[in-house]
Amino acid sequence: MENFFYKQPVPIDFGFGKLDQLPEILDRMNLKRGLLISAPSMVRAGIARRVMEQSGNRIVGIFSDIQPNPTVVNTDACAAMLRDYQCTFAVALGGGSVMDCAKAACYVAGTTYCAADLLSGARRIDRHGIPMIAVPTTSGTASEVTTASVLTDTERGIKALLASDYLYPIYALVDPELTMSCPPQVTAASGFDVLAHSLEAYYGKKHQPLTDLAAERAASLVFTHLLDAYHEPENKEARARMSEASVTAGLAFSLTQTAAAHACSYPLTQDYGIPHGEACAFTLPSFWRINCTEGPESARLQRFSKRLGFKSGADLAERMDQMKKEMKLHITLEEAGIHLEDLDDLVDKSFAPNMSNNPVEITKERLKTVYQNLG
Amino acid sequence: MENFFYKQPVPIDFGFGKLDQLPEILDRMNLKRGLLISAPSMVRAGIARRVMEQSGNRIVGIFSDIQPNPTVVNTDACAAMLRDYQCTFAVALGGGSVMDCAKAACYVAGTTYCAADLLSGARRIDRHGIPMIAVPTTSGTASEVTTASVLTDTERGIKALLASDYLYPIYALVDPELTMSCPPQVTAASGFDVLAHSLEAYYGKKHQPLTDLAAERAASLVFTHLLDAYHEPENKEARARMSEASVTAGLAFSLTQTAAAHACSYPLTQDYGIPHGEACAFTLPSFWRINCTEGPESARLQRFSKRLGFKSGADLAERMDQMKKEMKLHITLEEAGIHLEDLDDLVDKSFAPNMSNNPVEITKERLKTVYQNLG
Repeated sequence: MENFFYKQPVPIDFGFGKLDQLPEILDRMNLKRGLLISAPSMVRAGIARRVMEQSGNRIVGIFSDIQPNPTVVNTDACAAMLRDYQCTFAVALGGGSVMDCAKAACYVAGTTYCAADLLSGARRIDRHGIPMIAVPTTSGTASEVTTASVLTDTERGIKALLASDYLYPIYALVDPELTMSCPPQVTAASGFDVLAHSLEAYYGKKHQPLTDLAAERAASLVFTHLLDAYHEPENKEARARMSEASVTAGLAFSLTQTAAAHACSYPLTQDYGIPHGEACAFTLPSFWRINCTEGPESARLQRFSKRLGFKSGADLAERMDQMKKEMKLHITLEEAGIHLEDLDDLVDKSFAPNMSNNPVEITKERLKTVYQNLG
Repeated sequence: MENFFYKQPVPIDFGFGKLDQLPEILDRMNLKRGLLISAPSMVRAGIARRVMEQSGNRIVGIFSDIQPNPTVVNTDACAAMLRDYQCTFAVALGGGSVMDCAKAACYVAGTTYCAADLLSGARRIDRHGIPMIAVPTTSGTASEVTTASVLTDTERGIKALLASDYLYPIYALVDPELTMSCPPQVTAASGFDVLAHSLEAYYGKKHQPLTDLAAERAASLVFTHLLDAYHEPENKEARARMSEASVTAGLAFSLTQTAAAHACSYPLTQDYGIPHGEACAFTLPSFWRINCTEGPESARLQRFSKRLGFKSGADLAERMDQMKKEMKLHITLEEAGIHLEDLDDLVDKSFAPNMSNNPVEITKERLKTVYQNLG
């Protein structure tokens, strides 16, 4: 009989081909002068141009100078363009990097500071920025329904999470058609990001009834549809269900935060260049095994596994391992290019605050064993 | 692979004894001068006074002149008090009637019209009213997370539903402790209202993935905990779970609307004085039986029944009948005081728009048979 606090202020407009309805949506919301913030790949594919043209002058420019791990420089340039074009809204069309940059830029544009001030902690996010409509092109981050933005300050060597209720998009337009062109390796990695969001939300210390519901549904969708989306990129049903899984997992982890597998993913991405979702997949089965055999959540996780059609928690973990193999994700330290002599350093760097959300306490010794026993 | 639109803008703050935190919540939201809108019973019990005193001058008055089926006269009087006291927010503490009145009054207070203008359609709800915090004292209507307000204009003989996104409360403070004093018959009737919200949301034509999740969870909670809450009013766990069921069902039916059992409930309440939840319970098992044996949702409803631990859809319906008997709710026309010669009139009056949300089309002939076969 725990207390809980639930909120999810972002309306979710979901459907195949929904992007074509953007002009009507802008009209309905009385949004008149906006910037399209997108990825270079969307510009090359002609999608950014099409969105702008369809908008009937409601979108007045395109910003796409965004790196994979977006920097404060990207953000400040985007904010400058929002200011220069006197935009009153933005549409962020892309994956996690575009969302990260766009969320921060929409805030920075309404201030006199630069993105580095937010990252260093010199300035806080303390008011609404320019309203942003989020249109995800991958099924993974669920950034369209979260308050998070991760930016890098390469000059000062800082990579940090900005999180504030003021960073919520005002609208999530989720069009699974946009994910159809995702290459299989991106589908695999981002699909495991969704699974990590789901499982970590379910067993994380801040789980609550309504996030449990969303987490379980999202995990179930991933187990049922991810391999199809990976093997058959044109499978509309699989793509739609993975998009649904992603945004549904977002409803859960946006409130619970993530846990140990995500904490470990940060140095794996930063120091070894492993894509975020794949980096989460690296330790996810290990932590699942730990949490379903010991600690306060073990019985709950066994029941969860059975409801999802597995024989036990161990069986669910086994399935994750099989899926990783089938989708050619890195399994061992060796495959990931991590040398044994770097292990202590990796362990040290894995203790982001979300490590403590794991229901079983993870010590450095234990984490070292987790890494050593991979594969 | 249907499209869907989901939103749920009201934050839900849930927990036993949460009402005591109201002053901090008002503080955090920077709300300074409010009216407490409540029921005469809450005034008599001293709760309204306590809330006002605890508020540290943030609540400057109490309005409680609200009838069970609140009228436009109640609403205008409440709006007048909001204006006279120059309130910038309201706290609605009560059951469905208090919420209905408070939602409309908060809107009317910011206009030059009266509530009857809204009911007659002469005026539309076209802007935000005074922000309202909803604190439910029954587990039933879920009005704290919906856009609905039902008012009666006794002079013109109109009872109508007002619905607008502008009627969403800004915050739902759900404290199960407030339901502990609910007498068993109110617990029974409002518990069946929750069940009707859940089942009708699940099979209603506008159901969607996220409302399905909430509806199933809410129904499961009702089947597990309603009888305990009825037989043991002091059972905290049962009360908490019924409060959770109520607000969770609200997340579902606020988007899907209700269906046939609710449509039938309106004349049963208006012409025969049957309390709303009990009126919904009257035909709910009948429509469930129809929908799980024919029409597009039958297979889904059979699976739903099994996941909830029933042998079949029929078994779930049987359970509802048993629960109604055990809680002494009316079962037959005779018990409800309806004479056979009034049946045609009752059938005619049962076709509110939500009747057409039922997945199987209900004709007048069919509905007559439903009523005749009760019990």
